[in-house]
Amino acid sequence: DDVGESVRNMDDPYSNEPRRHAALKPSSKKPFNAEPPLILLVDSLITPNELFYVRNHLPVPDIDASTYELEVCDEKSEKEKVLMLKDLKKYPKHTITSTIMCAGNRRSEMTKVKGVKGLSWGQAAIGNAKWSGARLCDVLKDMGIEDGKTDALHVQFEGLDTDPANMPYGASIPIEKALDPHGDVILAYEMNGEPIPRDHGYPVRVIVPGVVGARNVKWLGRIIVSKNESDAHWQQNDYKGFAPNVDWDTVDFKKSPAIQELPVISAICEPLEGESVKVKNGKLKVKGYAWSGGGRKIVRVDVSTDGGKNWQEANVLESDEARHPWAWGWTIWTAEVPVLRGESEAQLCVKAVDSQYNTQPENFENIWNLRGVLANAYHRVNVKLRK
Amino acid sequence: DDVGESVRNMDDPYSNEPRRHAALKPSSKKPFNAEPPLILLVDSLITPNELFYVRNHLPVPDIDASTYELEVCDEKSEKEKVLMLKDLKKYPKHTITSTIMCAGNRRSEMTKVKGVKGLSWGQAAIGNAKWSGARLCDVLKDMGIEDGKTDALHVQFEGLDTDPANMPYGASIPIEKALDPHGDVILAYEMNGEPIPRDHGYPVRVIVPGVVGARNVKWLGRIIVSKNESDAHWQQNDYKGFAPNVDWDTVDFKKSPAIQELPVISAICEPLEGESVKVKNGKLKVKGYAWSGGGRKIVRVDVSTDGGKNWQEANVLESDEARHPWAWGWTIWTAEVPVLRGESEAQLCVKAVDSQYNTQPENFENIWNLRGVLANAYHRVNVKLRK
Ligand SMILES: [Mo]
Ligand SMILES: [Mo]
Repeated sequence: DDVGESVRNMDDPYSNEPRRHAALKPSSKKPFNAEPPLILLVDSLITPNELFYVRNHLPVPDIDASTYELEVCDEKSEKEKVLMLKDLKKYPKHTITSTIMCAGNRRSEMTKVKGVKGLSWGQAAIGNAKWSGARLCDVLKDMGIEDGKTDALHVQFEGLDTDPANMPYGASIPIEKALDPHGDVILAYEMNGEPIPRDHGYPVRVIVPGVVGARNVKWLGRIIVSKNESDAHWQQNDYKGFAPNVDWDTVDFKKSPAIQELPVISAICEPLEGESVKVKNGKLKVKGYAWSGGGRKIVRVDVSTDGGKNWQEANVLESDEARHPWAWGWTIWTAEVPVLRGESEAQLCVKAVDSQYNTQPENFENIWNLRGVLANAYHRVNVKLRK
Repeated sequence: DDVGESVRNMDDPYSNEPRRHAALKPSSKKPFNAEPPLILLVDSLITPNELFYVRNHLPVPDIDASTYELEVCDEKSEKEKVLMLKDLKKYPKHTITSTIMCAGNRRSEMTKVKGVKGLSWGQAAIGNAKWSGARLCDVLKDMGIEDGKTDALHVQFEGLDTDPANMPYGASIPIEKALDPHGDVILAYEMNGEPIPRDHGYPVRVIVPGVVGARNVKWLGRIIVSKNESDAHWQQNDYKGFAPNVDWDTVDFKKSPAIQELPVISAICEPLEGESVKVKNGKLKVKGYAWSGGGRKIVRVDVSTDGGKNWQEANVLESDEARHPWAWGWTIWTAEVPVLRGESEAQLCVKAVDSQYNTQPENFENIWNLRGVLANAYHRVNVKLRK
C-alpha cells in the first residue's frame, strides 16, 4: 500500500517517488503531501522519520550523494563556492532538535469558517526531529560573510526540485537569522541520526529552526547571499498572512511580509473528534502537542472540557532542555481534566502560552485568511463520555 | 497641581518626590504611579519625558550624579568593579528607541471580568523613548564576561530605591539577553537626549528593550552576574502570568516564569470610550498604538466598527526603521474606518499582528489572571455617532 509507488512512466514527473509508510494519509499525491495519524504523532517527543509529515511542492528529485554539489554565492562580491557532501562534513557537526511545521497545518479547521485555497491539512502537518549538519554561519564565514561585514539582507535557497519549466523551488530568510551562531541554521545531512530520507530533502536540507517549513528548503542546490528576498512564487505570492477582509479580488501580495517565525499553536491528539471516551474518577486523559516559532518555549498549556468556560493546566509538559529564545522543539503535554458529572458530551479545547506570554486566538473567524495559513486558534474536539 | 509636591516631612519617605506634569493621572500617589491622557500619548512617535507614564514601587531616591557609583559583580569569580557616571560615559554611546510598558497596562479592562490585585491602569502605562548610554555587554566584556565564556545564567539588577527595611527594588534578566550585542541592553544616562528625569531613574536606568518595564530597573545601583535569578519579591512573587483558574488560595508563584518579553498588544487612543464622534463620508478616524515585546515588529493592525464582525486594516503605521527581531519601538497607527449607515452607536475594536504573526486574544475571560498582568485582549471602545 505504498502511495507514490506507481508504474514507471517516463512522461510522468512523479514516476520516481520514494516509498512511503502506509500510515501517512495523503492530502495530495502529485506532488505528495501527507500527514501521520494524530495518535502516532504524540507517541514520542521525536517524530520517527517515516511518520514525519511530507509537504512537497514538486516531484522528489533523485540525487546521487556522491556527485551532489551545493553552490554558495555572494551576489555582491560575486564570490562562488561549490561544496560536495564530503566538504560539508568537514565542518563541525552540529545537532539541533527542531520542530518543522507547514504554514497550512490545521487549515481544515479554518476552512469551516469560509473556504480557502490550499491542501486540507489536519493537525499533523508538524513533526519534531534531530537534525545534524554544518552550520550555515560557519560556511558563510569561510567566504568572509559575517555579522557586521556584509550589507546583504537575505539568504536565498533553491531546491533541486523543479517545475515543468525547470524553475526550482525557492525561498529566503533574513540574513540576521543565517549569521547568528545561536540562530542554529544548519545545512543538515542527517535526520534523527540517519541520512535524510528522500522525501525530506536527501542529501541536504537547510534547517531554519523556529521558522515555517516553507523556508526549510529540501534538496538544497544553491544558496545566494543577497540584498533581496527570493523572488520565487512561494516567497512572494504565497505563505503570507492577510486580514480576514482580504479576498482573491483585493489581495496584494506585496502588502504582507513573507511568513518566517510561526506564532504559538497547540492541538489535542487524543482523544479524537467524535470519539467515545471513558471517564475515570470523573476525569479524562487528554494528550497533544504545543509549539511556538522563534525559539519561544511553551511555558503552560490550558485545557478545558466545557468549550472554554473553565480551564485547567496540563499536568505534564515534555520537551528537550533547550531554553528560550533557542527552544526550537515542541512540547508534548498530558492533562487529566475533570468533566461535569452526568454530562454525556464534552467539548475539549486547548490553548498554549509561550515564553513571550503570547497565547492563541480563541476562534478562526478573526484570523481567517484566504490562503488558510497561520491556523492557530484554540483546537476544539467534541467527544462522547462513557462511564 | 503638582502631585508629589507635599510639605516636607522627615517621617514621610515620600517627602522628596520630583515635580510632575499636571496632565499625568495618578493611580497611586505613594509610591507615585501615573499615566498620561490617551489623546496626548499618540501625539508623537516619541513620548515626551514629562508625559511618560511613571511606575514607581518605592520612594524616588535623590541621587547626586557627581558621586553616583554603579557596582558590577561577577558572583563566580568574585570580581567587582565600581563605575562612576564619567566611567560609563567613556564607553561608546549607544542610542536605541525602546518602548517600555508596565505588565499591568490595561489592567482596568481585565478587572471587569473579575477583580484582580494591582493598580488600576488604563491604556497609557506605556511610552516610547530614545535611550542613550553604555552597552551592558561592553561593560561585562571588560570584566571577561562574554558569550560562551561564562556559565552564569542571569544578570540581576538592584535599584537605589529601598523599602522601610532598606531592601532595594530588584529584578533580573536571562544572561543571553545581556550578552547579545544585538540585545541592545544599555546602561542609559539619557532619555530623549536629556539626563534621565528623576522619576525615570536618574542618573542611570538599565534599558532592556522588548522586556517588561519591571526589569528596566531605575536608579541602578548594582549589577550581579549570577547562576540565579534575582530573589527580589518582584521577580519571584509578582510579574508572572497564571491560568484563569488559579486564585490567591491556590497560586504557587514558583510554577510560572517571571515575565520578560511581553506579548503583542494594541489600543485605541482616539476616540475615547463614550465619546460622541463625527462621521465624515460614512467614515470615522481612529488612532492608537500597537507594540510587541522581544523585538517583534508590528506588521498589521486591524480595526472593526462592529465589535469584531468585520475588519479593515489601518491605513498608516508609523514606526522607527528598526527591523525584526530588534524592533524595540512601538507603532502609531491611524485608520479611516466605515460605519454602517443609520447606526447611532458603534463598538470599535483593534487587534495587532506582529512579525512572528502572533496576534491578540479576543476577550479577557480566558487570559484573566489574579495579578491582572498581560492584559492584551482586543481593546474595545464604545462611541456614539454624529452625522
Ligand atoms: Mo508549508
Ligand atoms: Mo510594571
